[in-house]
Amino acid sequence: MPIDIKTSFAFDLDRPTDLLLQFQAAAIPEQHIIDSDTWLTKAQHIANVPAQDAIGERIWIRADGPYKVDYTATVEVNRKVADVSGLNRLDPHDLPGEAVEYVFDSRYCQADRMHTFVDDRFGKYQGGEKVAAMRDWIADNFTYEAGTSDAKTTALDTFVERRGICRDFAHVMISFARAAIIPARYVSCYAPGVSPPDFHAVAEVFLEDPDLKGGGSWQIVDATGMADPAKTVKIGIGRDAADVSFLTTFGISSFRNSTVEVTETG
Amino acid sequence: MPIDIKTSFAFDLDRPTDLLLQFQAAAIPEQHIIDSDTWLTKAQHIANVPAQDAIGERIWIRADGPYKVDYTATVEVNRKVADVSGLNRLDPHDLPGEAVEYVFDSRYCQADRMHTFVDDRFGKYQGGEKVAAMRDWIADNFTYEAGTSDAKTTALDTFVERRGICRDFAHVMISFARAAIIPARYVSCYAPGVSPPDFHAVAEVFLEDPDLKGGGSWQIVDATGMADPAKTVKIGIGRDAADVSFLTTFGISSFRNSTVEVTETG
Amino acid sequence: MPIDIKTSFAFDLDRPTDLLLQFQAAAIPEQHIIDSDTWLTKAQHIANVPAQDAIGERIWIRADGPYKVDYTATVEVNRKVADVSGLNRLDPHDLPGEAVEYVFDSRYCQADRMHTFVDDRFGKYQGGEKVAAMRDWIADNFTYEAGTSDAKTTALDTFVERRGICRDFAHVMISFARAAIIPARYVSCYAPGVSPPDFHAVAEVFLEDPDLKGGGSWQIVDATGMADPAKTVKIGIGRDAADVSFLTTFGISSFRNSTVEVTETG
Amino acid sequence: MPIDIKTSFAFDLDRPTDLLLQFQAAAIPEQHIIDSDTWLTKAQHIANVPAQDAIGERIWIRADGPYKVDYTATVEVNRKVADVSGLNRLDPHDLPGEAVEYVFDSRYCQADRMHTFVDDRFGKYQGGEKVAAMRDWIADNFTYEAGTSDAKTTALDTFVERRGICRDFAHVMISFARAAIIPARYVSCYAPGVSPPDFHAVAEVFLEDPDLKGGGSWQIVDATGMADPAKTVKIGIGRDAADVSFLTTFGISSFRNSTVEVTETG
Repeated sequence: MPIDIKTSFAFDLDRPTDLLLQFQAAAIPEQHIIDSDTWLTKAQHIANVPAQDAIGERIWIRADGPYKVDYTATVEVNRKVADVSGLNRLDPHDLPGEAVEYVFDSRYCQADRMHTFVDDRFGKYQGGEKVAAMRDWIADNFTYEAGTSDAKTTALDTFVERRGICRDFAHVMISFARAAIIPARYVSCYAPGVSPPDFHAVAEVFLEDPDLKGGGSWQIVDATGMADPAKTVKIGIGRDAADVSFLTTFGISSFRNSTVEVTETG
Repeated sequence: MPIDIKTSFAFDLDRPTDLLLQFQAAAIPEQHIIDSDTWLTKAQHIANVPAQDAIGERIWIRADGPYKVDYTATVEVNRKVADVSGLNRLDPHDLPGEAVEYVFDSRYCQADRMHTFVDDRFGKYQGGEKVAAMRDWIADNFTYEAGTSDAKTTALDTFVERRGICRDFAHVMISFARAAIIPARYVSCYAPGVSPPDFHAVAEVFLEDPDLKGGGSWQIVDATGMADPAKTVKIGIGRDAADVSFLTTFGISSFRNSTVEVTETG
Repeated sequence: MPIDIKTSFAFDLDRPTDLLLQFQAAAIPEQHIIDSDTWLTKAQHIANVPAQDAIGERIWIRADGPYKVDYTATVEVNRKVADVSGLNRLDPHDLPGEAVEYVFDSRYCQADRMHTFVDDRFGKYQGGEKVAAMRDWIADNFTYEAGTSDAKTTALDTFVERRGICRDFAHVMISFARAAIIPARYVSCYAPGVSPPDFHAVAEVFLEDPDLKGGGSWQIVDATGMADPAKTVKIGIGRDAADVSFLTTFGISSFRNSTVEVTETG
Repeated sequence: MPIDIKTSFAFDLDRPTDLLLQFQAAAIPEQHIIDSDTWLTKAQHIANVPAQDAIGERIWIRADGPYKVDYTATVEVNRKVADVSGLNRLDPHDLPGEAVEYVFDSRYCQADRMHTFVDDRFGKYQGGEKVAAMRDWIADNFTYEAGTSDAKTTALDTFVERRGICRDFAHVMISFARAAIIPARYVSCYAPGVSPPDFHAVAEVFLEDPDLKGGGSWQIVDATGMADPAKTVKIGIGRDAADVSFLTTFGISSFRNSTVEVTETG
């Protein structure tokens, strides 16, 4: 069942400014881009560069004045989705090199501060069951509430304040997993069912993959409960939200508006 | 002129524990490992994995009881060292994909909080001159003082408290560079002249390389003034200190001691 | 030359809620309240209690629905204003008991983190000259910019970010003074010349008073440069902004608007 | 049953330095000082000043070289101790002026960040029952562990890290109470049963006093469970630990050692 995506956002620049955009569905094996169109306001410079871990692309722009992005895509998601509770954790010493950086702390995910809590609360669970218990605990104890967090809000802040948006839920989920030495990363994505419709973010954890002898694979975990992993279209990944904004302005921009529509076509 | 390295460190584990070690000179084009020997206490599991950006290796260990690491190496450094003041900055939109993550914030480097200061203080300088001005400002305004910082200390803390060790100086340098949208990363290294002798850390910034038409390369910047870039032996790199510790214990270890000797043979 | 004050603010409560108001010119020796009128929406409970250090009053309200406060006053300020640069500091051991709490850290003023900076930058100055140097340094290095700080912003944040509003300037000034062991407190006030017109805040420092053999008195210091100490009408004082808000709601209120007019009558 | 106190602490100063000491049992109605002796190394200047809210005294010292304090006291505690669970809370608008500052945030107690958690977790309890539930929750969820916190550690840190010492337990208890708009303050004290024997700290909350028509009184709450309120000898009180250290050095001191013995004589 393909997913239809329609995005538009606009902003103003009052001088020539460098921008980084990352809003397109990533062309990766688990996602087949059936069709996609991107309209960008003309600019002095436009160049695509591979994004983190070669998942998706970033677009460098140098532009001035009003700027607008329109994007439509139809994507078939072929992701192998497992029930995380049924998966084992890989022992740290079995983690492949490329997963290691995702057990380390990052800008918004201070896992080092949460070891005692994570051991006390989730120590009795193993592997994927632990991840599921973390996800459920966040869902039970946090309120999804727009306007209660901002770009400075970290997982530690959210853990104390017990509220936030998808970005904040993902940061706490990632921090908990890393505190249990399970690699976890941040995924910006499109997903049907997100309410109100907007760019979405979820966590991904690296657990043993029964199909890969001794190896692991990434599994989506959404503590907000809004996204279905089987229908989530990934844009890009990173250590946390610092790495995958749909718009990073290296200068000053005035944001005008954005719309996001994600629907299942049947 | 080869650099001789002799390192030893020991710690105790009171149960089977996973460890990550990263202490060996990285085998990279700019460093020729003439000779090296590593002695590790026997362990249940030992496996090498590539480290961040394939610079150097990490060693996964699963061990129990007393553990000891001994390492000697002789390394010829063939690094092309430039005077950073003479180099240009690449415009953000000309940065290659792999350098982009190093303009983003990380655990210990909150560049987003330092834009106003960096613009006010260093706005008049361009490119490598700006980097040199940042380095000199840190050298002038910070006191190198062991025991004033710990594993929680961030660039923001150090900026306020005006003192710390190599790790803290590097974090501030990296944050300043990123606030000026110059990619910057953290380098753990061995360097003669470090006093007292110890593992060392410096920053690296990505600036235009006159030999690479429109491309850039990484240049070492040490705000402590202790390391000579031409004689610095890199172990590994990362976003900041969260990524490249010589010893990361996934559990509890009692550190016993470490010694580091780095000398120029000639 | 009397100061005319006209204030109005309104907010909505959607259930019976307790409020603390503190907006009236304090009746203290240095201020003669020539005339004043306060209109409060009727409420279930209204009671005045003395405010911190008996300077001014707080009003407890229990109310519901739309609420409005109107206040006018004409105040003659008879404050003895000294040029702080000409005053001596009292040695810590000569501080009276009631001034001691104002050398300690408070919610928004982490003076303990700023000792090294304050010693390095202002160590060469003594007493009131040191205070003046701090005030001038803040004025030179910080940008007054509404919307860049919020209720969570501390002196440490502002010191890093180099911008903010009167509240933030006062917090940094207070922290610097305390780091030099000069008692400093936060003063909410009305002052002509504040632009845009609004409730204002300044710091006060406790320095030797030449008229009081071995004793000290409080002197207003405004790092924003907007308030003239001789024309500043104090509302109340506290350790920092946590203690003297004009409106503290113990529950949820929707703020509608406020206006403040302060003029010199001639 | 009198309490015997025996304290000694020593430190070195390498130049003439101002100090503030606060280690003596407070002479307040609820504590009868049967007998007490204080020996202080001779100093250039020694002066007593009243401590916060006139509870106990602080001693200003100006001294140089080795310094030693010895103190013995026998104190009869006549405190009226109530079971806090049986007490009502005063409505905010019924709080007397002098209790108001203790609902505000302070250096180590960021109650403003904990409203959501406190409402979610303790919202179902009223008055003193709420205080008891907070105390029990802290006792159940936090580990008493020396060396896990330091002078920078705040209630927010401790809430995340779930461990600390008496100071940290008191800071979290105070923050929770204030988030529920119950005045709470920090009490430094001597108490038998503290293990290992040391200076101790507890919280005090302001609740309705059945003997005072509509008024309130302070009740000791110790989330560590070590101190019996009926046998706790108060030294002083403050907003938090920033206000009541037994030794505050305005300069540099090398701490040598301290001993504290508190016993019930029978």
